Amino acid sequence: MILHLSSDISQANQEAVLAAHPGFHFQREDGIHVVITSSKEKEVNSTIAQFVEDSFVFDNDIQLASRSYQEATRTINIGDIVLGGSSNHTAMIAGPCSVENREQLMHTAEYLNGLGIKILRGGCYKPRTSPYSFQGLGLEGLKILAEARDKFGMKIITEVRDATHVAEVIEYSDIIQIGAKAMYDQGILKACAKIKKPVMIKRGFGTTLQEFVQAAEFVLSGGNPNVILCERGIRTFETKTRFTYDLCGVAWLKQYTNLPLILDPSHAMGYRFGIPDLCRASVALGIDGLIIETHPTPPQALSDAAQQLDFAEFKSMYESLPAVAQAVGRTMI
Amino acid sequence: MILHLSSDISQANQEAVLAAHPGFHFQREDGIHVVITSSKEKEVNSTIAQFVEDSFVFDNDIQLASRSYQEATRTINIGDIVLGGSSNHTAMIAGPCSVENREQLMHTAEYLNGLGIKILRGGCYKPRTSPYSFQGLGLEGLKILAEARDKFGMKIITEVRDATHVAEVIEYSDIIQIGAKAMYDQGILKACAKIKKPVMIKRGFGTTLQEFVQAAEFVLSGGNPNVILCERGIRTFETKTRFTYDLCGVAWLKQYTNLPLILDPSHAMGYRFGIPDLCRASVALGIDGLIIETHPTPPQALSDAAQQLDFAEFKSMYESLPAVAQAVGRTMI
Amino acid sequence: MILHLSSDISQANQEAVLAAHPGFHFQREDGIHVVITSSKEKEVNSTIAQFVEDSFVFDNDIQLASRSYQEATRTINIGDIVLGGSSNHTAMIAGPCSVENREQLMHTAEYLNGLGIKILRGGCYKPRTSPYSFQGLGLEGLKILAEARDKFGMKIITEVRDATHVAEVIEYSDIIQIGAKAMYDQGILKACAKIKKPVMIKRGFGTTLQEFVQAAEFVLSGGNPNVILCERGIRTFETKTRFTYDLCGVAWLKQYTNLPLILDPSHAMGYRFGIPDLCRASVALGIDGLIIETHPTPPQALSDAAQQLDFAEFKSMYESLPAVAQAVGRTMI
Amino acid sequence: MILHLSSDISQANQEAVLAAHPGFHFQREDGIHVVITSSKEKEVNSTIAQFVEDSFVFDNDIQLASRSYQEATRTINIGDIVLGGSSNHTAMIAGPCSVENREQLMHTAEYLNGLGIKILRGGCYKPRTSPYSFQGLGLEGLKILAEARDKFGMKIITEVRDATHVAEVIEYSDIIQIGAKAMYDQGILKACAKIKKPVMIKRGFGTTLQEFVQAAEFVLSGGNPNVILCERGIRTFETKTRFTYDLCGVAWLKQYTNLPLILDPSHAMGYRFGIPDLCRASVALGIDGLIIETHPTPPQALSDAAQQLDFAEFKSMYESLPAVAQAVGRTMI
Repeated sequence: MILHLSSDISQANQEAVLAAHPGFHFQREDGIHVVITSSKEKEVNSTIAQFVEDSFVFDNDIQLASRSYQEATRTINIGDIVLGGSSNHTAMIAGPCSVENREQLMHTAEYLNGLGIKILRGGCYKPRTSPYSFQGLGLEGLKILAEARDKFGMKIITEVRDATHVAEVIEYSDIIQIGAKAMYDQGILKACAKIKKPVMIKRGFGTTLQEFVQAAEFVLSGGNPNVILCERGIRTFETKTRFTYDLCGVAWLKQYTNLPLILDPSHAMGYRFGIPDLCRASVALGIDGLIIETHPTPPQALSDAAQQLDFAEFKSMYESLPAVAQAVGRTMI
Repeated sequence: MILHLSSDISQANQEAVLAAHPGFHFQREDGIHVVITSSKEKEVNSTIAQFVEDSFVFDNDIQLASRSYQEATRTINIGDIVLGGSSNHTAMIAGPCSVENREQLMHTAEYLNGLGIKILRGGCYKPRTSPYSFQGLGLEGLKILAEARDKFGMKIITEVRDATHVAEVIEYSDIIQIGAKAMYDQGILKACAKIKKPVMIKRGFGTTLQEFVQAAEFVLSGGNPNVILCERGIRTFETKTRFTYDLCGVAWLKQYTNLPLILDPSHAMGYRFGIPDLCRASVALGIDGLIIETHPTPPQALSDAAQQLDFAEFKSMYESLPAVAQAVGRTMI
Repeated sequence: MILHLSSDISQANQEAVLAAHPGFHFQREDGIHVVITSSKEKEVNSTIAQFVEDSFVFDNDIQLASRSYQEATRTINIGDIVLGGSSNHTAMIAGPCSVENREQLMHTAEYLNGLGIKILRGGCYKPRTSPYSFQGLGLEGLKILAEARDKFGMKIITEVRDATHVAEVIEYSDIIQIGAKAMYDQGILKACAKIKKPVMIKRGFGTTLQEFVQAAEFVLSGGNPNVILCERGIRTFETKTRFTYDLCGVAWLKQYTNLPLILDPSHAMGYRFGIPDLCRASVALGIDGLIIETHPTPPQALSDAAQQLDFAEFKSMYESLPAVAQAVGRTMI
Repeated sequence: MILHLSSDISQANQEAVLAAHPGFHFQREDGIHVVITSSKEKEVNSTIAQFVEDSFVFDNDIQLASRSYQEATRTINIGDIVLGGSSNHTAMIAGPCSVENREQLMHTAEYLNGLGIKILRGGCYKPRTSPYSFQGLGLEGLKILAEARDKFGMKIITEVRDATHVAEVIEYSDIIQIGAKAMYDQGILKACAKIKKPVMIKRGFGTTLQEFVQAAEFVLSGGNPNVILCERGIRTFETKTRFTYDLCGVAWLKQYTNLPLILDPSHAMGYRFGIPDLCRASVALGIDGLIIETHPTPPQALSDAAQQLDFAEFKSMYESLPAVAQAVGRTMI
């Protein structure tokens, strides 16, 4: 249950409400106090009803993210870039799987910036499944990304792998990416709940839509309203492709949640050949962004070599998107 | 291994080749004799090499359907309707889940014909998972479909459920649909291998892409070159939607097989709300057709009530597709 | 809903009941007439209530197979062999994947008969996923199995692949096996519903437990009470083993259905090394039988070479089972 | 590749080896220095070959855990309790899902201690998927577990949820449990690599066997040899049970890895009714332990209410296990 309390409610009355309905509490930018309890609670306690301006009950723990709480898609501001809300923007986010060295990243950033791309991706803390693979440059990578931001005026998004370095990623990144393997990590989610920077949560490959949105609730219930969801493929019996891209799931998220949606066909497909088609399909679905891996020389990449587009492939795909976006009433940015 | 023998090879020499390489044998329309063996065979036997004009070896049993055998997508003619090949057509196939009675089907056909739709779907032998559900009208349904064909000049597609009625479906239908639950059925596949009518095979919800294409090989190896594949969603852990629509799999099929592709987002999604978005996404992927369920009054439908679009929903979705098709260089028909 | 009508109800009154409650109708061996409708029907029509001796309502279409209809596990008689009921028998069924030739089958039958095994398996119509693989000996294989039955006094079980040869399998086999790829095939299910021979239905690898039991309802509702279920592994993301053996599913079937359960770890595992452990685990679960593939020379097998035990492996495994069975109060037969 | 260097190799020569083969390095209890690189390395560099006493190459990054490196199952000592090695022990680990309060835990510990159970489980940091569910008592719970250990002489195992509290769990627990949702968490894995306490890693429900064992490699490659694997069910399309218990996967782990195996049928099944059967099946498979949830009053449990056995159910199941263990040559402890 979500309760709205007046912006000028006294401290004592806030405490009375929380005593009657123990739960999360934060104050919105517009001053309204929000209290959230388990969805099992269905009725406002009469002793504190006088302090409650509005209340919302739910079938399950998708509450703050639900369109039945807030119908309009949330607006996310990344500096002067607007996603969601009434923008009809579909943003292209691109960059290499991993920041491998300064030269590789700056070269890629320069190329993408030249195409007009505004948000740069690049992994620094790689959640590799083997200890014997390249693990990323860590803090050094963050600094390289920051240099690209300064030089090209792009925004950056990078992934936090575990709670031990969440503070660094929060400090350096414009959008905090919580990866598919880390999305249940409460150490990360709770750290992201305390900030206002946008957070993009990727769906775990074994994660149900219900659990996925509930991960967002960990962030939202701490008072950070700026959460984006990212579908990147789930693990199924089919192994000809790396994962299975769940666009039915995306359609469900569009229908039932108010969170902007960024799609990642690169990880779903796992191979270069299908990615341009999947990018066009994703844009036609009507979404808020795409995040695509590209690398100057994919065969030399230290991670995800098979799925990173080279620059020519990327450009050709990228230039095909505005027409598709326009056909569904959206604008590529 | 596939062997091509000259169109004027003698009967005795044909037999010599088949003695050396036991396998399937048929004569193509252009006269060439085709012999297909297991892909484990990699070399033409020297004793009959003189009769072999061309030979093709493969890594696995995707042979006739492989782009490494025939690079161009197959052209399928359904009367004067052309799919695949160099047509760049994306066909809309629509109609109710089940033919429920004459009035419902004729009413639907009239509406769809008015929109310019050329191919009508409707199930007569329903592969229901419970014996206690509506099982379809059977032969009576086929006759109603044929009446709609005669009246409106539409082509019809309907599903064969098991081998006991495959002859009737072959007689009445313009495209034989082999459903997701029947696609391993050799009684059906072998009957369809003996005809030249187009056959659309739906992927089983637990079927790998490899097995899916191998089902097509059962038909192709009997001499029927007119096979279309249809993705309709696979079964995964996600249950908020009915199935999981595997567009990575479609991208793989486009890359590696020469079979035209028709997509069925209705069964994948299972709910009306996501289907228009998924139709647009599918068209943007660059495909040969869509097959969509629509019903005059979906809540009264005897099967798949949740996923059939009403006419207004269908029309709105349908009219949004040409712009998407055009954006990817295709034409809706 | 299931209705029980008196054994001496008149023909006219039977018809009145069926007019009020259209559905399946058969007469049990004890004379009781059974009428089954969709589980959506929850109330006996008052106009015919006087003819109804007993009625049972259900949440879903698992009706005749439900323990809430008949609590005790069904007793299945295969000649003088008793499975299920109060027998506490766990039967070993063994034999090669395919009947490859007379010598291979007779040799195997002789060996297994020497160990005391009473039921022989062997495939004649192989549901291969490629047309270019060995497809089985067909009717010739059935005759070889029949010869083994005559010579060694064993019962035989063999698989029907599609409806075109269901009559032959019904004629020759003591237990009709409906395979994982054929279990939705109504041509087969309905043919098996008209006989009284035991029918073993294997779960499809993409089949839910609900659909699995509903396949049994197709047979049961036609009047054949002798249905056995067989778990043989489902298809999941894990590919180190051929399939994933669903023993939680078996536990669910034990709890909720009255059908005897035979387990097939050979197909689940797909590799010889794990099968003995899985056999012991299966027996410890408390089941009615095991069906295991064994071959005189597995590496030469024409199908499933990797998973067939050689005779020494089979014997060693088989001799370890009685102690496990005894530990859970059952007897190996 | 794994290299063994002599126990008395000089510091300079160690460094020469690591310069030629950058990788992980630790010294075993017996003094041998172990260096591990990516499995892509297949040959010892000739310049340092003189320092290498033994070398092992591998097909993939399952290296230290592989039976091809060390054939015998690892021996794990938890105080005076021995698992694995040549012990043939199957240990019962039991306790509530969550430590809810002092009384509940002490009552449960007393009961289990009375049955002879030596290892107590209880969650303090619950990895709930909703922020609105009970999250565990945290450090207070750890202290209650420690009190039970002191009072009853039992060993305790409890779960670390994320890296923010891994130090506390390492301090208090006798076995560190890394849960299914945390098993990719390098913050946790690397902390556990630096200690010698036993670590039990649960398989993620979307995790392949390959990734599962590679998670163990993160711990092993840091120098902690005491890793146990725990199968607890994977997520599949079947939803009648909570997860699908992957015993084929367990058979694969037994065959290819040297890590002791503890099985958790409670989470796989998710319902009380199947757990006793699954416990017996698991023991018959030949494993090193079971971890089972039990609660004084399951319907009142704050988490996993449906799957916790009450004491009578637990006792009945527990007393049935020694006969099964004996039938497969093992002893319950």
